[in-house]
Amino acid sequence: MENCIFCKIVGGHIPSTPVFENEWVYAFNDLSPVAPQHILIVTKKHIKSLATIEPSDLETLGQVQLAAQKIAVLLGVDASGFRLVSNCGSDGGQTVDHLHYHFLAGREMKWPPG
Amino acid sequence: MENCIFCKIVGGHIPSTPVFENEWVYAFNDLSPVAPQHILIVTKKHIKSLATIEPSDLETLGQVQLAAQKIAVLLGVDASGFRLVSNCGSDGGQTVDHLHYHFLAGREMKWPPG
Repeated sequence: MENCIFCKIVGGHIPSTPVFENEWVYAFNDLSPVAPQHILIVTKKHIKSLATIEPSDLETLGQVQLAAQKIAVLLGVDASGFRLVSNCGSDGGQTVDHLHYHFLAGREMKWPPG
Repeated sequence: MENCIFCKIVGGHIPSTPVFENEWVYAFNDLSPVAPQHILIVTKKHIKSLATIEPSDLETLGQVQLAAQKIAVLLGVDASGFRLVSNCGSDGGQTVDHLHYHFLAGREMKWPPG
């Protein structure tokens, strides 16, 4: 998508600090962290949000979750824990219309989650 | 798992208010809602958390995300939006050791997510 900031980041046209990458996802540090470790896990395929996913996206969606597990090990927080969050639409607080999950770790997350 | 409360709910041994169910997931109303619509999407397979998922869980993990999309349509919040949250371990705020995702909708979710 020509005007999508996350597509530009995935394509390397906008610089980012990579944390993890494979065939399905690209993960990088959030520029406005709200936890000591705050990573964005972005699908390489341009999907608008969780509201628009389709059965054909099954593998990509599963791979995002597996990426979270791998990132937890990479960052050494698989034992201490983390929170995974995806915002969808206006009520969800979505600010970029490209499917992404926030990986938050390094502190005790509070409840409710926003 | 004999002593897992979510396994008991999935198996019908503890009552719950179902919202959605298929081969992979069971979704029901959270008993302590923090949003007007607060659903728990639980995997039918007993998986401890996102920290312990394995490549063989790929389909289940993808199906949880697809279930969120279906629940959004069922509840009529696919346009207004929602937040999907999974807590992993102590820092994530996980209280039941069976993989689940919180589906939150019906109000504007705040940032940070806890």
